[in-house]
Amino acid sequence: MPGILSDLRIVEVSAFVAAPLGGMTLAQLGADVIRIDPIGGNIDIGRWPLAPDGTSLYWASLNKAKRSVCIAVNTPEGQEIARALICAPGENAGFLLTNLPTGTWMGYETLRKGRDDLIMLRLIGNSDGSGAVDYTINCASGFPMATGRGGEPVNHVLPAWDVAAGLYLSTGLLAADRARQRTGRGQEVTLALSDVMLATVSNLGYLADVQVNNAVRPPIGNDLYGAFGRDFPTRDGRRAMLVAISNRQWRAIGKATGLAAQLAMVGPMMQVDLDTEAGRFAARHAICAVLEPWFAARTLAEVHEKLDGSGVLWGPYQDFGQLVHEDSRCSAVNPLFGEIDQPGAGRILANAGPLGFSENGRVPPAPAPRLGEHTESVLSELLGLSSAQYGRLHDAGIVAGPAAR
Amino acid sequence: MPGILSDLRIVEVSAFVAAPLGGMTLAQLGADVIRIDPIGGNIDIGRWPLAPDGTSLYWASLNKAKRSVCIAVNTPEGQEIARALICAPGENAGFLLTNLPTGTWMGYETLRKGRDDLIMLRLIGNSDGSGAVDYTINCASGFPMATGRGGEPVNHVLPAWDVAAGLYLSTGLLAADRARQRTGRGQEVTLALSDVMLATVSNLGYLADVQVNNAVRPPIGNDLYGAFGRDFPTRDGRRAMLVAISNRQWRAIGKATGLAAQLAMVGPMMQVDLDTEAGRFAARHAICAVLEPWFAARTLAEVHEKLDGSGVLWGPYQDFGQLVHEDSRCSAVNPLFGEIDQPGAGRILANAGPLGFSENGRVPPAPAPRLGEHTESVLSELLGLSSAQYGRLHDAGIVAGPAAR
Repeated sequence: MPGILSDLRIVEVSAFVAAPLGGMTLAQLGADVIRIDPIGGNIDIGRWPLAPDGTSLYWASLNKAKRSVCIAVNTPEGQEIARALICAPGENAGFLLTNLPTGTWMGYETLRKGRDDLIMLRLIGNSDGSGAVDYTINCASGFPMATGRGGEPVNHVLPAWDVAAGLYLSTGLLAADRARQRTGRGQEVTLALSDVMLATVSNLGYLADVQVNNAVRPPIGNDLYGAFGRDFPTRDGRRAMLVAISNRQWRAIGKATGLAAQLAMVGPMMQVDLDTEAGRFAARHAICAVLEPWFAARTLAEVHEKLDGSGVLWGPYQDFGQLVHEDSRCSAVNPLFGEIDQPGAGRILANAGPLGFSENGRVPPAPAPRLGEHTESVLSELLGLSSAQYGRLHDAGIVAGPAAR
Repeated sequence: MPGILSDLRIVEVSAFVAAPLGGMTLAQLGADVIRIDPIGGNIDIGRWPLAPDGTSLYWASLNKAKRSVCIAVNTPEGQEIARALICAPGENAGFLLTNLPTGTWMGYETLRKGRDDLIMLRLIGNSDGSGAVDYTINCASGFPMATGRGGEPVNHVLPAWDVAAGLYLSTGLLAADRARQRTGRGQEVTLALSDVMLATVSNLGYLADVQVNNAVRPPIGNDLYGAFGRDFPTRDGRRAMLVAISNRQWRAIGKATGLAAQLAMVGPMMQVDLDTEAGRFAARHAICAVLEPWFAARTLAEVHEKLDGSGVLWGPYQDFGQLVHEDSRCSAVNPLFGEIDQPGAGRILANAGPLGFSENGRVPPAPAPRLGEHTESVLSELLGLSSAQYGRLHDAGIVAGPAAR
């Protein structure tokens, strides 16, 4: 199956995480996403981690299923070619996705001269136009001060704001496409990375809590806030995260561990109603005191045996290696994954997009291109360039094909 | 302006974060999102944080700009009404967004009998159908083991997988709508929360690093991996996050702090090229040793004065209270925000969607409904129920309007 967006063509001029992820999300739904990079690659081409031959596994992972075109966009002729690709005709084309500063050649008004109905998505740092990246936004979000056990802020390692921004971009592009189908009009869609953070903090109720209660959520380690949940060390030095949100899940813990009677004593002892989330949160230390020995007496494998299928909501802690080696969800058993031949990395397990469509299926995992792999074919296909014309541009250093490695 | 999706109508049967966020993302683009809840509310209706009168600020924040309908979906008559709402006619309707277990009444095949082109988005825990929530997936992701300074795993507090899942749902709904516009066919779209995690870990290169290099990213505190960045305490007990990814940003640090000459000595001393990300990462402790006294001698306000507008990429750490009280981005100065009257919470600052559209503008922030606020109007509008018919259903306990508080 060709994918639900297989008729869409998008040009991406991007770097780092958010915009490439936005493009890749659409590519993994079947869209033809053409990433234009300067010759030699953009600023993210060598980001860590690297494969032994120097290939960036970061870049390769964030640009799967795209096509790659290399153009000297610092030259007028290169800019002209890039503009022609961005503005190339087609009802389901005319999309530009970018997080790079839009100098003169890539300004929306300039580009519109080539295609009046262009849809341009632009990720910026702050809504006032100043710069920001995930790290300099995360520190301001409040989350590092509420993470860990207190004393000092803890940055989460997941670039969560970039990930969310990438998915807002894919949503925004499809919304703008839908509007253009109806009105014939394109538009510029702007997203500030700090607005993604601010909207999310607000959406989760943190801003309201400050405004209404003057309450600032403190760090409480790995405890859930307002419900029961925490991590428990096991006998073999592993850990399990245990959670009970519903009463059904709470009762399942007592049943599966055989500790129901002891756990029931916590209610009167702590004078709370354990059939409420608030009660379980208030009594969480006493609850954990009952459960700790149970986990400490068992290996993670034994915890699996007792809790899997019991209705208990729990999960094992894994490092990235254990995720790859121990978790069957992270294997070809899961339809999300398949093996690909990734230039520079070899044959590896890689993911498709996570959305499954009953009519359109799922586009199988595809590797990232080599940098410049599609320069010649895209210029031929979209702009009708002959081999001779391509050769001239190539020899003049205006475009480049894949580098020999 | 009515919003870019103002002709869309979506029914949501949901709880917690991901599915409500997916619906709210579309509501904030103008879609009419009707959340159906059991009478008295779903399992998330009382989640913390709460306003003094017991209103859930969590629920209110995640359901802004929607309409609320209360139906006894545990009764055959209630199920019939809910089905009729989900399947109500309209070219731009016939969408169901849910993360609840789809018992008989809400199965896709059952619902399709009422509307053959129904688009149903279903968030599940794991792709094999087993249950999972953000917390029990996050522990398995590898991130808690790579967060903090090591020794024990650190859960990030942001429900990042739920947030990403919500935005995959909004992307997936628009993709399915686009396909239906072309083919006339609806479909079931399935998303597993753990697949969102797995895809993201893979997209960011962590899985490839394990497979290609057998390397498992260790925790390195608040240091950036593979580049220069860290937090620095200031004289007044605050902290600043400082980052240099490009060489331009790196040189800006030397210039703005007046420490360029001293920083330049780090290169030969540590035998690295400070004009590369890898060199700056390798020499980060020496770089930080030079910069620490600079921050320690200044208040956060003085750091602002020196670094703002200097080209240095940095940000202050803030707790949620400081974010609300000190950060102008978190105020009505930012077009993202506006004041709303939120029932139970009063007049508060709340966010619109973060995407700005040059043609369609941005839908202003809107409050969440009171539970059941729109039951009567929606049943009248979509199903043509008279006041008398509504009254009968209401008195029979099949539907409910807003509870008096």
